[in-house]
Amino acid sequence: MNDIIVMKFGGSSVANPEKIKNVALRVTEKAKKNDVVVVVSAPGDMTDDLIAKAKSITDTPDPREMDMLLATGEMQSIALLTMAIKSNGYDAISLTGPQAGIYADDVHTKAKIKKIRPKKIFEELKKDKIVIVAGFQGINPNDDITTLGRGGSDLTAVALASALKAKECEIYTDVKGVYTTDPRIVPEARKLERISYDEMLELAGVGSQVMMARSIEVAKKYGVIIHVRSTFSQDSGTLITKEVPNMEDVVVSGIAFDKNESKVSITDVPDKPGIAAKIFGALARANINVDMIIQSAAQEKYNDISFTVPKGDLKNAVGLLKNLSSKLGGGSVIFDDNVAKVSVVGIGMKSHPGVAARMFSALAGEGINIEMISTSEIKISCVISSASTERAVKLLHKKFGLDKVKK
Amino acid sequence: MNDIIVMKFGGSSVANPEKIKNVALRVTEKAKKNDVVVVVSAPGDMTDDLIAKAKSITDTPDPREMDMLLATGEMQSIALLTMAIKSNGYDAISLTGPQAGIYADDVHTKAKIKKIRPKKIFEELKKDKIVIVAGFQGINPNDDITTLGRGGSDLTAVALASALKAKECEIYTDVKGVYTTDPRIVPEARKLERISYDEMLELAGVGSQVMMARSIEVAKKYGVIIHVRSTFSQDSGTLITKEVPNMEDVVVSGIAFDKNESKVSITDVPDKPGIAAKIFGALARANINVDMIIQSAAQEKYNDISFTVPKGDLKNAVGLLKNLSSKLGGGSVIFDDNVAKVSVVGIGMKSHPGVAARMFSALAGEGINIEMISTSEIKISCVISSASTERAVKLLHKKFGLDKVKK
Repeated sequence: MNDIIVMKFGGSSVANPEKIKNVALRVTEKAKKNDVVVVVSAPGDMTDDLIAKAKSITDTPDPREMDMLLATGEMQSIALLTMAIKSNGYDAISLTGPQAGIYADDVHTKAKIKKIRPKKIFEELKKDKIVIVAGFQGINPNDDITTLGRGGSDLTAVALASALKAKECEIYTDVKGVYTTDPRIVPEARKLERISYDEMLELAGVGSQVMMARSIEVAKKYGVIIHVRSTFSQDSGTLITKEVPNMEDVVVSGIAFDKNESKVSITDVPDKPGIAAKIFGALARANINVDMIIQSAAQEKYNDISFTVPKGDLKNAVGLLKNLSSKLGGGSVIFDDNVAKVSVVGIGMKSHPGVAARMFSALAGEGINIEMISTSEIKISCVISSASTERAVKLLHKKFGLDKVKK
Repeated sequence: MNDIIVMKFGGSSVANPEKIKNVALRVTEKAKKNDVVVVVSAPGDMTDDLIAKAKSITDTPDPREMDMLLATGEMQSIALLTMAIKSNGYDAISLTGPQAGIYADDVHTKAKIKKIRPKKIFEELKKDKIVIVAGFQGINPNDDITTLGRGGSDLTAVALASALKAKECEIYTDVKGVYTTDPRIVPEARKLERISYDEMLELAGVGSQVMMARSIEVAKKYGVIIHVRSTFSQDSGTLITKEVPNMEDVVVSGIAFDKNESKVSITDVPDKPGIAAKIFGALARANINVDMIIQSAAQEKYNDISFTVPKGDLKNAVGLLKNLSSKLGGGSVIFDDNVAKVSVVGIGMKSHPGVAARMFSALAGEGINIEMISTSEIKISCVISSASTERAVKLLHKKFGLDKVKK
């Protein structure tokens, strides 16, 4: 057998017959030298259209039936792509998630993959067939079709690549790879040749929307090499791999930012054990995703607690906290939705002290005020005023030399 | 357990959310007193749209992939209908053909049902659920989804009714039942309370498009009582059952007609054994469906052979026969596509001689020329000129008293 390559194409790549034929060409080219397994999403806006159809029947569609409905999108993609590949003179077969042996748990509409039994896929590869698998779906312990939630097709691709011991998992997108920052803001942004899982996780988590964090975590866990590349170009893209020694030469890999943030503070919270747990427990129960959290002792026996939440959750969070603060004997609740988060990401910073200091002084030098700071081993994030975001990103991109090609 | 009723709704009954909600109401009403299994087709024109999509990829779509594609139509219907039923406060579950235990052969796009294992359906009925099954599909010996060809959803319903020992198989359509003839032509046409399988087969075969012959044959074989009725009315429709004694009082049940006919004749064919086999063998190999066949000895040692074929096959048939006739030493090939077939159908005519004579004299009395005649135990068909069709149907409907309500 040849090396196995998993190729994953998103919905925009199979939105119409012309695009499906283009994907078929990419696949048959690859199949000349490799055993190929393809994962596809539903065509174009079909998933959204189906959700709208369900909502026109009832406001609260049954989740099992929602999965039955949504699974049809990927089934159409795999059937049409397989027809296109066969009409190019290559043998191919489409498999639904259940047929491909993708076993999931029974949480409908957001199931987790439990295991993969790739027997059928191997059988078909041995018959020299290209195997086209429906992304985003699996079979649950009740033998029902289930879907894997947002980013599910990437997850299918990465999990299959692991189960098949594929050489590489290629994620085809409408961008050429992972960039040092958003090229729409910094024209000098460079495509990265290679990035580590952890760096990609930080970039994905702070607004670089190439892949969902979930799939990268699975790739990291099982050591799957991901290759993010363009559907419309032959150029190689960005490899996402485990950390390799020469990576350490690169201190900073990219600048990420997220404008979908707002800042909330509760002042004068009594400094007693269990207070933070009460506050963040209440937010969690309301399904409000809290990101950066900072607690500062403004005066003895009282703390100010500040954190960021997505803009869409701000109103709920503030309402909930005003109630809670009076119960806890805290002070006022202050909020600001004109903020953004800017992050410097790089594995190299673990062994290069001073990255934070350079970041802060760069921002200060341009008169950009830092409202909050949080750090991890490979990331430093600052909350700044929203209006300064683009200026800060450009500045940091240049300051850390990301516009210069590395050796 | 209550009596089981199978309800089948076609694509036009589930074409949009409003119609799906209407079907859900019909189903939940029925479920108050019965255990209900529902069979649904793909919504509206979806099957045709999907076929068009496949054709825009390739002129010769792979049949297995075509089935993967087409099966999504019924899956969308069952999911949406089940959501609608559940939002009415009834418990329900959708099952694909494979999940419902419908096992088919491996002839993709026109599979035959081999057996039904209704274990899962019974389990769900015992949990007091309404079971919604995708029509037109099953699973084949390779564990692939396959479709059952034209009229496949009716077939699913009838086969399930048999396997579940249902009290009745209700076929919901946009007409109120089976009529003595087409009400668009004869306003006095009456809805029949009851008709035998054999009569229905003759009516279906000669142009009454309520149900395909295939499903009626299966219903006859397994004794399934079919109830053809309207989606939009509470009135009962027409029962299709086995022949019962009091049926014999009714000599003629209906007048059928088919304008999609053309007549072909080969003159002066040598009267030797095996000639007819050669002619009709050649037509069969060309997939041309021959209906009425008449052979007459015009003169010693030579025959004229006439038969009817669908209008769409006429050109092919004539081309093929011109070649063949010269090889066989036959004469010229004559054709006429301005013909129609009018049939009088009724189980009672088996024991009432003279029906044929009454038919011929009625047509003659109006100056309508009969070009061909064929008879079976329960049907007499005449080929006449196409222009006279409506006049002949009206005349025969009146002549056999079909406009008068029977006791």
